Amino acid sequence: MFFRTRLERFLEHPRFGQFITGVIVVNAVLLGMETSNNLMLRAGPMIEGLDKLCLAIFVIEIAMKMVAQNWRFFTFGWNLFDFFIVGISLVPGAQGLSVLRALRILRVLRVISVAPRLRRVVEGFITALPGMGSVFFLMAIIFYIGSVIATKLFGADFPEWFGTLGLSAYSLFQIMTLESWSMGIVRPVMVVHPHAWAFFVPFIMVTTFAVVNLLVGLIVNSMQDAHQQEAGDRTDAYRDEVLTRLEAIERRLDDKK
Amino acid sequence: MFFRTRLERFLEHPRFGQFITGVIVVNAVLLGMETSNNLMLRAGPMIEGLDKLCLAIFVIEIAMKMVAQNWRFFTFGWNLFDFFIVGISLVPGAQGLSVLRALRILRVLRVISVAPRLRRVVEGFITALPGMGSVFFLMAIIFYIGSVIATKLFGADFPEWFGTLGLSAYSLFQIMTLESWSMGIVRPVMVVHPHAWAFFVPFIMVTTFAVVNLLVGLIVNSMQDAHQQEAGDRTDAYRDEVLTRLEAIERRLDDKK
Amino acid sequence: MFFRTRLERFLEHPRFGQFITGVIVVNAVLLGMETSNNLMLRAGPMIEGLDKLCLAIFVIEIAMKMVAQNWRFFTFGWNLFDFFIVGISLVPGAQGLSVLRALRILRVLRVISVAPRLRRVVEGFITALPGMGSVFFLMAIIFYIGSVIATKLFGADFPEWFGTLGLSAYSLFQIMTLESWSMGIVRPVMVVHPHAWAFFVPFIMVTTFAVVNLLVGLIVNSMQDAHQQEAGDRTDAYRDEVLTRLEAIERRLDDKK
Amino acid sequence: MFFRTRLERFLEHPRFGQFITGVIVVNAVLLGMETSNNLMLRAGPMIEGLDKLCLAIFVIEIAMKMVAQNWRFFTFGWNLFDFFIVGISLVPGAQGLSVLRALRILRVLRVISVAPRLRRVVEGFITALPGMGSVFFLMAIIFYIGSVIATKLFGADFPEWFGTLGLSAYSLFQIMTLESWSMGIVRPVMVVHPHAWAFFVPFIMVTTFAVVNLLVGLIVNSMQDAHQQEAGDRTDAYRDEVLTRLEAIERRLDDKK
Repeated sequence: MFFRTRLERFLEHPRFGQFITGVIVVNAVLLGMETSNNLMLRAGPMIEGLDKLCLAIFVIEIAMKMVAQNWRFFTFGWNLFDFFIVGISLVPGAQGLSVLRALRILRVLRVISVAPRLRRVVEGFITALPGMGSVFFLMAIIFYIGSVIATKLFGADFPEWFGTLGLSAYSLFQIMTLESWSMGIVRPVMVVHPHAWAFFVPFIMVTTFAVVNLLVGLIVNSMQDAHQQEAGDRTDAYRDEVLTRLEAIERRLDDKK
Repeated sequence: MFFRTRLERFLEHPRFGQFITGVIVVNAVLLGMETSNNLMLRAGPMIEGLDKLCLAIFVIEIAMKMVAQNWRFFTFGWNLFDFFIVGISLVPGAQGLSVLRALRILRVLRVISVAPRLRRVVEGFITALPGMGSVFFLMAIIFYIGSVIATKLFGADFPEWFGTLGLSAYSLFQIMTLESWSMGIVRPVMVVHPHAWAFFVPFIMVTTFAVVNLLVGLIVNSMQDAHQQEAGDRTDAYRDEVLTRLEAIERRLDDKK
Repeated sequence: MFFRTRLERFLEHPRFGQFITGVIVVNAVLLGMETSNNLMLRAGPMIEGLDKLCLAIFVIEIAMKMVAQNWRFFTFGWNLFDFFIVGISLVPGAQGLSVLRALRILRVLRVISVAPRLRRVVEGFITALPGMGSVFFLMAIIFYIGSVIATKLFGADFPEWFGTLGLSAYSLFQIMTLESWSMGIVRPVMVVHPHAWAFFVPFIMVTTFAVVNLLVGLIVNSMQDAHQQEAGDRTDAYRDEVLTRLEAIERRLDDKK
Repeated sequence: MFFRTRLERFLEHPRFGQFITGVIVVNAVLLGMETSNNLMLRAGPMIEGLDKLCLAIFVIEIAMKMVAQNWRFFTFGWNLFDFFIVGISLVPGAQGLSVLRALRILRVLRVISVAPRLRRVVEGFITALPGMGSVFFLMAIIFYIGSVIATKLFGADFPEWFGTLGLSAYSLFQIMTLESWSMGIVRPVMVVHPHAWAFFVPFIMVTTFAVVNLLVGLIVNSMQDAHQQEAGDRTDAYRDEVLTRLEAIERRLDDKK
């Protein structure tokens, strides 16, 4: 028991946090250097060795946290985040599969869990998401409907763009971002299906509107919350004082009766 | 009369709502499966049979609602929405015309009329629209004027883009979304009409400005309404209390006279 | 004098306004029909004749307004707007020059000066503009500087895009709208000038930021004004009442002394 | 000492400010004329001579300011801005290096430091930046991670786009601006790596969201500040009065005891 408290105090020491941040930064630079063939030819083994050292430090840190916090370790979202990110590099096949190797850079995201400021920004994003869940779900429905219609109508003539539900969903996402939607996709489609615009133009209008709604809603919402809270605290204090004073006056008037 | 009340109670039972939601989801999956040639070859008749079963359930549900609510059925917007969406699949030619067949997927939109949350989001969108009607009308005028000018000036030289009013409107919509407006359209046009930019650049500025205005206006507006209402309720309660208390003090002062 | 008052009353009569609106709509349809070669072959003279009739009605209307309002006619912005728009079609060369002929469709904009709702929307836009004048001026400076730099650095190698100040300004406008900026312009430029991104990427960041600032600022600003005014009226009434009551209480306390 | 005060008064005289603004405008026009080969052939020496005159005036002005304000000169940000911008043209190699020659146009930015209005707009931008520092830092991390992953996964097959960290960062910036992201980059990449969309689509979603957040946050924030301050002053005055009056009433009640 006593050992745990000391361990926890050690883990929470600012110096230790700074050390871990430093390791993250060094690791980020190392993983960046790995992308350069030139550097890898000259100092490949050293870079990979240092990378393994960084990984080892992260593993030890997380193990220490698990010992110190016991089962409570898994109740903190950011702990799970660290656990998962570091864990990727420990997956058996990780040295073989190029995708898993590439994902090791995700370790840099640990900067977020280490810096309270960044943590708050990300937490702000995440707590705002559920409020927009229904708009997001609506978007998913629109995309599903759009994909089915596009696949059925244009799939046979343009298999590369609308051959399957997945291809249609990707093409519709591209169209939603307005990238080459007309010159690249809709004009060629209209050569075969002259009324294709009657599907694509409303699709663009609805999804663009929903996206703007989703984004701005999310942002303005959380922004106004922050402001209202700030202004609200001062207002509450003022209101409480007014009501207390009015009560006091009434009490005094009662006393004198 | 009594029969109707029981029917209505049955229709409003949460279990029944969950059942209909389930049928909608199953139907959505079935209609998605119909896009896969592979699946249709192996289990085509079964998928189409199940789809017809879903359709039958929807028809029965709506018929039951019509019996239970009688003429009031047509006074609810969402009922009309369901009626129309399910009706598309019952149009005689629906089995032949590929467009009508493709539109059967619109049935998935019934999820919205079934889920109160999604209903509210969509209702929010719709109630916000009339407030922006004038900006929308202004946009229509700008598009009409732009189409006439573009057709007259560039129609002869670029019939593919500006040959008719309809083609011009489509091309101007593409230009408004900024898709390939310069490299794809305006630069080629400028080779023949060197001053074409004097039409297109202001057009982009005006329409982009109007669209942003339309969207952000719509959103911020409804957002502030929501916030103000929330903050307003608490403020009203406080204000009422202050005024009641001030009145009480005055009354007591009067009593003592 | 008496004649003028009667004329003014006639001009302000709702029936007369409706008649003019009708003429505008008919004129809009006629000018749209002129873009169709097919219709012009069959009924060209009739369409042009009716168009001239509409123009005559507008000229008479404006002449009547000038008589009725005398010199005050030129003190209303919307009168000048109508005068200018109708005047375009009366310019001597108007029948020859295709650009002036195409601009006749601008007459449709008279719908705005006739409908009070649309007038208010446009007036809202215009009154908001001067407040953003400095951001707009800043943008002009950035564009001028960007054009000079681009012309000097890339003009010799890419005369089609950056040959003169005007071409550079147009290309930079295209880049600001993000249309084909990279694939179409910057990547080809980077083949010759490998560090060209150091000019274009910051240019995109600065101008995009300024544009967003310009638009959102304009909108949110006018929106908040509207809301604050509404909420402010009720608050003012409440505050006045509180202060009056407090004064009354003080007076009574003074009286009793 | 006395000489300095007179010099300072001279520098602050409105006429002198107008004179400098005039010189800036003339200089801007001259530097613009330098981009025209035609004009340079006809009046090259004169234009360059006038440009040198303008530069001399700026150098003298700054020298005078340095004498008048002494060491305090370097404590004003805008002085340093002027010093740096004018200094560029005095760098020894400036007559040879084309980039440095092109940068002379930056002198036009002196309009900002001269006009108080523009100064305030720019200062508004700058003071708002640190508040969004963490979102900006987050973006940098996302870009770094994205660049490393893209280089490792696609660098070998598409060296032109993802060959090095720098090329990847540029390509990802292009993708973030949505320019040709699908037709130009992701579709070709998907021919080799069919699951590439699983990297690019989330990347677009996250960065677009962060950028919107960054921009709108910045703007709405500073906007609300301005409004709240305005509304707050009146509210504070009202609240102070209410509290003073309540206090006065209590005091009188105490007096009568």
